[in-house]
Amino acid sequence: MPNTNLNSNKGRPAVLLFDVNETLLDMSDMQKAVNETFGNELAFKLWFALLLEYSLVENVTNTYHNFSEVGQAVMRMTAEKIGKDIPEEKQKELVNMVKETQPHPDVIPGLEKLQQAGFRLATLTNSPAKSSIPHLEKVGLKRFFEDTYSVDSVEKFKPHSSPYQYAADQLGVKLEEVMMVAAHGWDIAGALRAGARAAFISRPGQALYPLAPKPELTTPTLLELAEQLVKME
Amino acid sequence: MPNTNLNSNKGRPAVLLFDVNETLLDMSDMQKAVNETFGNELAFKLWFALLLEYSLVENVTNTYHNFSEVGQAVMRMTAEKIGKDIPEEKQKELVNMVKETQPHPDVIPGLEKLQQAGFRLATLTNSPAKSSIPHLEKVGLKRFFEDTYSVDSVEKFKPHSSPYQYAADQLGVKLEEVMMVAAHGWDIAGALRAGARAAFISRPGQALYPLAPKPELTTPTLLELAEQLVKME
Repeated sequence: MPNTNLNSNKGRPAVLLFDVNETLLDMSDMQKAVNETFGNELAFKLWFALLLEYSLVENVTNTYHNFSEVGQAVMRMTAEKIGKDIPEEKQKELVNMVKETQPHPDVIPGLEKLQQAGFRLATLTNSPAKSSIPHLEKVGLKRFFEDTYSVDSVEKFKPHSSPYQYAADQLGVKLEEVMMVAAHGWDIAGALRAGARAAFISRPGQALYPLAPKPELTTPTLLELAEQLVKME
Repeated sequence: MPNTNLNSNKGRPAVLLFDVNETLLDMSDMQKAVNETFGNELAFKLWFALLLEYSLVENVTNTYHNFSEVGQAVMRMTAEKIGKDIPEEKQKELVNMVKETQPHPDVIPGLEKLQQAGFRLATLTNSPAKSSIPHLEKVGLKRFFEDTYSVDSVEKFKPHSSPYQYAADQLGVKLEEVMMVAAHGWDIAGALRAGARAAFISRPGQALYPLAPKPELTTPTLLELAEQLVKME
């Protein structure tokens, strides 16, 4: 049940903080390749759930391997769990497709609208800075953002509160003045529980976490979110 | 590559601490029912990965809903992610199958062997005590254990160090004297990183986490593990 109405009167957020993978960048080519390789249309979703699961295993065991390293490790686990013998080179090739994703078609029009309306825009990703920043540059998105943050800086993956707080601190605003924009239930849950505001982009195959607070806004695309946000006083 | 050889000389652990779901109890009937309902043979694995992912979202956002509540919530998310309209009653019925699981055939022979050899035995589960203890009683396993612990007591899911430490404290031993026995990579990773010892039961569809330390023992069944353990001085 997407909720496209505002349900708060907090006014414009000081900064919009965007998640990157799946929220801005379309992973469907990678999804297709993973599913074809494993011969199952849920293989990519399983890999992505394991990626989040094991990044949080890192968090709760006070260890840190970056998202690319965890991504490789859980691709091997995906193959073992499915019982499919995928050569390591092929596994690497699949994981490296993360670096070739392009923006969803609504992203640039949405960001342009928000930029024209004077919003401060930044990104916060679980991916390592060394690969994610050049990627945003290459696909023409970096120019919209005053800064691009990675959980690398705090070595705790979202939805731990540290990366949200870190981004707010760097931007010189309070967490409650930040609106996290994400297509993942865990990111919305983490941002809201940390004290930030949140908007959910309900991309196909994405779902909110039923036990977390609800985001202020839910729209199917970033362009529609921008249209809602520019109406805010 | 299962490793059935001892690779340490630490001697007999003071206590063997067993994970419950999938390690002792066979979830394959539930797996079959979930996969049939969703029409995909990876649906159960996706649900289980989301269950772990979101239980760790609870941990890292300092919130606690018990494993049954998270299990229900992520069954709804699984349906939304797959895009399948499963009535809520059916979702509940599927999740409640957790309460109907039976021991794997190797479990009672393995526990008997360990008990006869004088090992102290206990369990530590992510499931709530109020459902998991009666379940262990009903299927004839409770009699083997001097105590049966749930993460309920500390409101942090494994693989956070708190529940392992809690169990060791209750048993009156040091964490390094405990050997965690589990069929899940995350449980092995958490126990080892917390300072305990670990043995992996490599049940079909299970995989170790490649970025964590390796367990001392890996065997396909609990009976084979018991055979290794009773040889320890």
